[in-house]
Amino acid sequence: MSGHIVNHEALTAYISDLMQTQGVPADEARIIGEHLVEAEMFGVTSHGVSRTSTYMKRLHEGVVNAKWSYRIDAETQSIVKWDACNSMGMVTGVKAMQEAIDRAKESGICLVAANHSNHFGMAGYYARMAAEQGMLGICITNAPPNIAPTGSSRAYMGTNPIALAAPRNGRPVILDMATSVVAMGKLVVAQKLGKSIPEGWALTAEGKPTTDPNEGVKGTMMPIGGYKGYGLALFVDIFCGILADAETGPHMNNLWHDFVNPQNVGHCFCAIDISKFLPLSYFTEKMERMIAEIKALPKIEGVPEIYMPEEIEFAKRDRAVQEGIPLADAIYNELAEQGGIYGVEMKI
Amino acid sequence: MSGHIVNHEALTAYISDLMQTQGVPADEARIIGEHLVEAEMFGVTSHGVSRTSTYMKRLHEGVVNAKWSYRIDAETQSIVKWDACNSMGMVTGVKAMQEAIDRAKESGICLVAANHSNHFGMAGYYARMAAEQGMLGICITNAPPNIAPTGSSRAYMGTNPIALAAPRNGRPVILDMATSVVAMGKLVVAQKLGKSIPEGWALTAEGKPTTDPNEGVKGTMMPIGGYKGYGLALFVDIFCGILADAETGPHMNNLWHDFVNPQNVGHCFCAIDISKFLPLSYFTEKMERMIAEIKALPKIEGVPEIYMPEEIEFAKRDRAVQEGIPLADAIYNELAEQGGIYGVEMKI
Repeated sequence: MSGHIVNHEALTAYISDLMQTQGVPADEARIIGEHLVEAEMFGVTSHGVSRTSTYMKRLHEGVVNAKWSYRIDAETQSIVKWDACNSMGMVTGVKAMQEAIDRAKESGICLVAANHSNHFGMAGYYARMAAEQGMLGICITNAPPNIAPTGSSRAYMGTNPIALAAPRNGRPVILDMATSVVAMGKLVVAQKLGKSIPEGWALTAEGKPTTDPNEGVKGTMMPIGGYKGYGLALFVDIFCGILADAETGPHMNNLWHDFVNPQNVGHCFCAIDISKFLPLSYFTEKMERMIAEIKALPKIEGVPEIYMPEEIEFAKRDRAVQEGIPLADAIYNELAEQGGIYGVEMKI
Repeated sequence: MSGHIVNHEALTAYISDLMQTQGVPADEARIIGEHLVEAEMFGVTSHGVSRTSTYMKRLHEGVVNAKWSYRIDAETQSIVKWDACNSMGMVTGVKAMQEAIDRAKESGICLVAANHSNHFGMAGYYARMAAEQGMLGICITNAPPNIAPTGSSRAYMGTNPIALAAPRNGRPVILDMATSVVAMGKLVVAQKLGKSIPEGWALTAEGKPTTDPNEGVKGTMMPIGGYKGYGLALFVDIFCGILADAETGPHMNNLWHDFVNPQNVGHCFCAIDISKFLPLSYFTEKMERMIAEIKALPKIEGVPEIYMPEEIEFAKRDRAVQEGIPLADAIYNELAEQGGIYGVEMKI
């Protein structure tokens, strides 16, 4: 069998060591390593450790700042207009969401809108931080174009994800969804495997439905619910591109191709302190009642269990912590290669 | 040709007069009349003047309180836990969103979470209020069950709509979407016309895809994007049923069938004061730039124009204000009948 099983702590430490070779401070390098490994363990491999080489190249080229900094352009107790100063997106994400959480402890809610940021990984990671501190969390980000407005054949909005998280007794409930039916990554996989894709995933460059992934990657990703997903993706750009004053869709520089110009991504982070509305224990008990009722609903034939959003992903994650993370040869070798380039011994 | 063309002002006044016969104060009756007529003019006829008879019956039976009242259970400058005291949903909606807007002028953001409310019509109406006052508006509400969690054949969540609004120069951009692919009303129409429905709208009572509207109305409405729409509808219930402390899905009493027990619907209203982040004129200019760019994108063959969310509906509305509102005979006659029952002369 090809592939490797690696320990999550060792993998986190290795990525963190790599980042530090480029001047990322130890605690910030740790944030990035933890995020990438967490995404890998959640099964969100598109945002997992395979991103390491791209982040390393961006750091090495100096297109993103190695040391985290920020500036507050405007604020009240409940809102912050945050300039991320072209810092690493994941560090900005953790710091900005914690700022929202801390302020919400006073005011009940806080919205931090950040510009001049970079790709920050899984939006759900930041929403989850709030839920793990007894709050409702919301996180959205814009991204380079992949979705066309309804009626157009040209992408404008990114797949602009929306993440929501709520505490319960145990693991929080997290929704972390792109506003497209599937991620572009699924087309790339189908291309590699020479398989067709279901109708409803992508449109050709002429805006026609297609089952050919080769046509799909040249075209656009279909938004969920047609004009509804267009609207959701558009509003993510309104919040992250306009309220946060970052770029909108096509003006944003692509992290894969452009190693000269900063991305200027925008994010919004919102934390809502449940205890300001009602006792947290009352909230979580009502959550448990609802979840128990949903799990007891009649199942469609062949369905073993009804899951909460991210319940399956949390189970995957916990298994990976116990049993190790499976990495394909290609990913493992690419990571090893990074160690060779930047002079870090890979002990995983 | 059957049908009537009626003046919007006369129609509003007539509905307002009807409501006042049941003890609704004049200014509150006006809010309800304006809302129903606005929905009718927007083409959201499912939430339009055909609802008048149900609202009248609920007022007459005393299952909803005729006079608006509310109680604040908990508050900061930026959040309000609002008890709607079983008032008419549309009056609560206008008052609660205005409260959110007024507080956001100080704090930059305010979230009002209301329980013990009733059906409040179009969520987009309240989000629009914020946009018309230079703010970003968000409004969500839960509703009786219509959507099944992924894997179940039984509905739990309502079609739980999400509304978002943003100011621009001129009419705001508004997204007002149910989290189901289509509203249940579309199945009822297909039933009446003896037509089949597209696959992807509804599931049978066994959770199987169907193109038969008769099977669909006995089953559940499909959420947008599969598990994504399930997650969105679930989070609307978390915010409106649990944070706001109203009922969740199946515990909510149905406004069409139950004229004894209050509904206990929950809503959330959020206003974000853009001027606390950056100058409003800068925001609206960036909105206009984005909209101009989207409208200039290449169009799919046969598409005359790329529209912003609700742009078409605003055009319909403005035409109806100028030229009158077309009402089908059945709707017109039902309205006339209400006048007979409650002793109000219909002059429309």
